[in-house]
Amino acid sequence: MKQKFLAELLGTFGIVFAPVALSASGKLHGGDSSLAAAAWVSGLAVLAMITAFGHISAAHFNPAVTLGFAVSGKFPWKQVPGYVVAQVLGATLAAGLTALIFGAGAHGTHVPAVGASVLSCLVLEATLACLLMLLILAVATDPRASTPVAGVAIGLCVVFLVWIGGPLTGGSMNPARSLGPALVSGGAALTHGWIYLLGPCLGTTVAARLYAVFR
Amino acid sequence: MKQKFLAELLGTFGIVFAPVALSASGKLHGGDSSLAAAAWVSGLAVLAMITAFGHISAAHFNPAVTLGFAVSGKFPWKQVPGYVVAQVLGATLAAGLTALIFGAGAHGTHVPAVGASVLSCLVLEATLACLLMLLILAVATDPRASTPVAGVAIGLCVVFLVWIGGPLTGGSMNPARSLGPALVSGGAALTHGWIYLLGPCLGTTVAARLYAVFR
Amino acid sequence: MKQKFLAELLGTFGIVFAPVALSASGKLHGGDSSLAAAAWVSGLAVLAMITAFGHISAAHFNPAVTLGFAVSGKFPWKQVPGYVVAQVLGATLAAGLTALIFGAGAHGTHVPAVGASVLSCLVLEATLACLLMLLILAVATDPRASTPVAGVAIGLCVVFLVWIGGPLTGGSMNPARSLGPALVSGGAALTHGWIYLLGPCLGTTVAARLYAVFR
Amino acid sequence: MKQKFLAELLGTFGIVFAPVALSASGKLHGGDSSLAAAAWVSGLAVLAMITAFGHISAAHFNPAVTLGFAVSGKFPWKQVPGYVVAQVLGATLAAGLTALIFGAGAHGTHVPAVGASVLSCLVLEATLACLLMLLILAVATDPRASTPVAGVAIGLCVVFLVWIGGPLTGGSMNPARSLGPALVSGGAALTHGWIYLLGPCLGTTVAARLYAVFR
Repeated sequence: MKQKFLAELLGTFGIVFAPVALSASGKLHGGDSSLAAAAWVSGLAVLAMITAFGHISAAHFNPAVTLGFAVSGKFPWKQVPGYVVAQVLGATLAAGLTALIFGAGAHGTHVPAVGASVLSCLVLEATLACLLMLLILAVATDPRASTPVAGVAIGLCVVFLVWIGGPLTGGSMNPARSLGPALVSGGAALTHGWIYLLGPCLGTTVAARLYAVFR
Repeated sequence: MKQKFLAELLGTFGIVFAPVALSASGKLHGGDSSLAAAAWVSGLAVLAMITAFGHISAAHFNPAVTLGFAVSGKFPWKQVPGYVVAQVLGATLAAGLTALIFGAGAHGTHVPAVGASVLSCLVLEATLACLLMLLILAVATDPRASTPVAGVAIGLCVVFLVWIGGPLTGGSMNPARSLGPALVSGGAALTHGWIYLLGPCLGTTVAARLYAVFR
Repeated sequence: MKQKFLAELLGTFGIVFAPVALSASGKLHGGDSSLAAAAWVSGLAVLAMITAFGHISAAHFNPAVTLGFAVSGKFPWKQVPGYVVAQVLGATLAAGLTALIFGAGAHGTHVPAVGASVLSCLVLEATLACLLMLLILAVATDPRASTPVAGVAIGLCVVFLVWIGGPLTGGSMNPARSLGPALVSGGAALTHGWIYLLGPCLGTTVAARLYAVFR
Repeated sequence: MKQKFLAELLGTFGIVFAPVALSASGKLHGGDSSLAAAAWVSGLAVLAMITAFGHISAAHFNPAVTLGFAVSGKFPWKQVPGYVVAQVLGATLAAGLTALIFGAGAHGTHVPAVGASVLSCLVLEATLACLLMLLILAVATDPRASTPVAGVAIGLCVVFLVWIGGPLTGGSMNPARSLGPALVSGGAALTHGWIYLLGPCLGTTVAARLYAVFR
């Protein structure tokens, strides 16, 4: 469990550090603030961290994904709290280190677009997380879909989901991804945190129910 | 068949929701309206959905591809109607959900470029669909070309085909992709629908005949 | 040999049609004329066509690559003419079909940048082709480097090589890629054709000699 | 050892030539000077060169990576000097050839952003190199993480790390990558060389210690 905890912590650190540091480098040093960059960096970080730690902890890096596995009966409920703590810790360390390197200020936080309805944001986050979880359940729990490119497929899936979701909600799909930077920056990002908890968890739960049809 | 129907429905939902929601987020929330974004999001969605559902339904997600398999003798003709219904249903749900999340308006529909000849559009759609189907027939029906990266190759193939075809026709290659948003939005997209039915189906049929030389 | 001829023809058609049609769609229909688009479309087309036809003809699609294999003793010299004819035919058909779809005009031709020295162009084309051929020789002829992602690696290699070479020479690395559009358009592209024959062939020959050290 | 030396030299040549020539083509011939281009070209070159030479020399191409392997006990210390010499030689040849093709001038050198603190640069380079080395240690030394897509994952990891690190430090992670162009151009790039030696070596050493927990 110590190994799994460290793997979840380091992996979540990596997938949160990537987009948050990108955002800071864009704001403060003339880096790339485009949505395309955010999408690619977010997804390629997921690809790399799954490949690095998948064999240790199954590479959840996301409380909503851990929930989806548990609902599917593919992950023990009693290990959920430990995984979630490691994930939130890793995400918070990533946001903290970014602040250390690039200086104070809120970097890479998630807030709904101005004027967007809460319902639209919830449905969007749930839809994105549902598509992601269907893919994860296939490659990680269904022997028929086992593939050496599971990490590549999941990472590239995150790329297009962030590209779609970025403008309205940031394309989180991951409560830890949203919570870490919010804890460091406080303010609006923390106030809207519940959207990024509820939406993704709803999506991964629906995915778990849908995938049950294929078993 | 129930499993296959659901897989075709969900997979086509995913590959249509991705570019249609991207288009809506670009128009309404300052997202990425570039051709590059449309190409990447379309192709990476195909990559993800093939990886998620290929083991269930062989991941057609496209009536023209289903036709190509049937012409090649690699898919039973009697299952064609069920697959096509699932595909059109998934595509229409994707366009409908996009309208729900982002508000009314036509998103991600396909119409030929102003001033483009119908013949040019048909030949282009047929050429793109033919190249795609040649690849699909190799990796999905020829044991010599079997590869764990079939879904990756097909998804990345869709990326460059949309990049090429986008300006003239939208780079559909898929009647369901074009029909779903057209049904939701009506108007010009529905009037030109026959181009997106005939062109791709012509291309996949030619591909099936060409690939027969290699068997 | 008939199967190999058709595979080389279709594959070279695909990898030439992609960048040439992209160029035409950029000039005539407001498509994507960026170097990034040319790089991605060129490389992803190579990825797709290798995956589609590698098991038939070993997927050369390039007279300089065919030469490199022959120099390495991994391809019979007597089959070289047939391969080269198929490649040039496929490339010319691709340029012709592009002209048919998008209308007259020179699309996707290769000419050195204004003011560039011929020597610089030759050395650049040779260097790019040498790096590409080293990779191809490893994955295609060395059992120790055999990998299911050979086509993916080669395609993505072409992406960065075109990105580098585009501004100075177009980043051809392939006499057929340059000759096909030049035959259709005539003019300067045809006059400079020898650079795109000599440079890549020099590079792949050097690669064949270098790789011999590893056998 | 002769084979390994040549493989390290050629591979490092390739991964340094790519971003350095891209930079020159951007400055001198209107090529692509964007951060996205630098990130993709850097990472895809790593992907290609690992695939081409991994079976010969294990494809370090980076003194900090060689150090990380040695600290992990997975590479003999006595071979370190030979590897480092080959890497620095390859990187210097790459910078020299770029100067030959594109003319005099400093291309693709690494210097910290104006106003950036040395500590921030060191911590950033160490963090990026640590994430990279964790991935490398998993796929290259841990049988549980063995995968045919190791080169793909490492190359795509470099893409996002350069995208993040580019604005502040250039995103080197590799003393040879920084030293080669600095030796050819001299000046500020050489003065700051120690940052690009210390930062990455610190990161890969930390990664080696962290990964030991998983063994």
